[in-house]
Amino acid sequence: MMKNNREDLRFVVIGAGAVGCYFGGILARAGHHVTLIGRPHHVSAIQQQGLLLTTQTFEEHIKLHASSELAAIHDADVILFCVKSTDTIATATQAKPHLSDHAVILSVENAELIRSVLPHQVIPAVVYVATEMVGDGHVKHNGRGELVIGSSSDSELIASVLSAAAIPTQVSENVIGALWAKLIVNCAYNALSAITQLPYGRLVQQEGVPRMMEELVVECLAVASAAGVIVLGDSRANVKQIAITMAEQTSSTAQDLARGKRSEIDFLNGYVDRQGQLHQVPTPLNHALTSLVKMLEKSPA
Amino acid sequence: MMKNNREDLRFVVIGAGAVGCYFGGILARAGHHVTLIGRPHHVSAIQQQGLLLTTQTFEEHIKLHASSELAAIHDADVILFCVKSTDTIATATQAKPHLSDHAVILSVENAELIRSVLPHQVIPAVVYVATEMVGDGHVKHNGRGELVIGSSSDSELIASVLSAAAIPTQVSENVIGALWAKLIVNCAYNALSAITQLPYGRLVQQEGVPRMMEELVVECLAVASAAGVIVLGDSRANVKQIAITMAEQTSSTAQDLARGKRSEIDFLNGYVDRQGQLHQVPTPLNHALTSLVKMLEKSPA
Repeated sequence: MMKNNREDLRFVVIGAGAVGCYFGGILARAGHHVTLIGRPHHVSAIQQQGLLLTTQTFEEHIKLHASSELAAIHDADVILFCVKSTDTIATATQAKPHLSDHAVILSVENAELIRSVLPHQVIPAVVYVATEMVGDGHVKHNGRGELVIGSSSDSELIASVLSAAAIPTQVSENVIGALWAKLIVNCAYNALSAITQLPYGRLVQQEGVPRMMEELVVECLAVASAAGVIVLGDSRANVKQIAITMAEQTSSTAQDLARGKRSEIDFLNGYVDRQGQLHQVPTPLNHALTSLVKMLEKSPA
Repeated sequence: MMKNNREDLRFVVIGAGAVGCYFGGILARAGHHVTLIGRPHHVSAIQQQGLLLTTQTFEEHIKLHASSELAAIHDADVILFCVKSTDTIATATQAKPHLSDHAVILSVENAELIRSVLPHQVIPAVVYVATEMVGDGHVKHNGRGELVIGSSSDSELIASVLSAAAIPTQVSENVIGALWAKLIVNCAYNALSAITQLPYGRLVQQEGVPRMMEELVVECLAVASAAGVIVLGDSRANVKQIAITMAEQTSSTAQDLARGKRSEIDFLNGYVDRQGQLHQVPTPLNHALTSLVKMLEKSPA
């Protein structure tokens, strides 16, 4: 349980990527004490001129604390854990000696991984936001910005503080169902966009792609069902929708491959495949796409 | 039925690629009358200096007839039809007015397609040979060189003529089973080698590839079984073997993609997928690989 009043809560965002910078910036703009932990080039830009946040309605330099040292998390009440899946275990392990016992961790989509390392209260969170880093210490907001978080003794308080700070946050008894709903959309798009380097709108117009996506959704839903997950919403409709609302977008996996970086595929199609193996549900497509993306990660760009 | 004696048979090879040039060259070397139909750059090289055939035991300039005009097929007794699957229908249609009624067509792996266009006797043939064009009118033989052909009233005669000319040829009642055995190996390797641009030996060492190949073989065997085909030999063992015997090889599909050419994927994984649809056998992997290769055909190389 957190020790400070809601007005005095100290927030720390670990991971100064686009999602972390956006939520940290919005919280600081609402008057909260926020410290961003990130790489030196972002930290020094933020220390010099504040976090530059560009949205469709305003552009502001927002003052907040920033550090590249995990030691700066020692007095945090609420940690927003926003690092990539591939770095989550390592970062959580490094953070462990610096965390106070009462800190509550809000984990963006990797609660399971963090719980495997930290004894703290870890609240799973699903993020719905489109943001991108457009320079050192400069984040651009393209749309949405809501959270769904799991229930816990602190969840209602945190949700009300976040919502008051212009981050609409819902507490859900089925955050795993919301996570899977998002995961399934990512499984349908990320790897295919990566292998073909096509944006979503053009991708779905290619021969065979609608059937592949349908078969991927079927595999994912079968695994979710075997794992006892009630997937929120209509996954087929969600998949169709993204091609329209995000037609120009290529996946983060596509961007990682184009930059020769390791992708998060092990936490997307790879996760579904591992869960399928665990529950003895066949996942040939999720496995194939995972394997192909991993082979392409290694190829010269 | 052919009208000439076995000594006087006139052979025409349509398609002066590596396979057609090899078999045409070997037949001419054994004293047969052979005409090669091919592209002008090969034809003029062959007219000037003969077909240059390099094997592991000899290198010879072999004299044979060559033409870039399909009209030159008019007196053929036996046609070896060796054009790519993607060009088969178009070439057979163009050949039709020039063919004598008695001509017998030996089709390298596309008898079904040719039968859809020509009323002639079409004998299916499966080719086991490793050859490559290394220059205009210059073919290199890397290994093997056998045929399995379907049974017909002319098959035993043709097989004995070919075998006497150093093209070991077997007549089989189950040539479709031999075709599928080769098709399945191609389905396991061609698309994966194309997407990753990896040679077979390194391909099978990549994470996830043995499982993908196993699942592809399972899909193919299920389709074959539903289609009433008895696949010859042990497909799993054949797939494993190729990684060893052809470790340095990349697939023809990989080469087509690297050159920005249309591949034969519709006649490999795409064929299995269509047969699967026809017989209501799920083929998600064959379909996905077909679709991915087709999207990559269109990408800038």
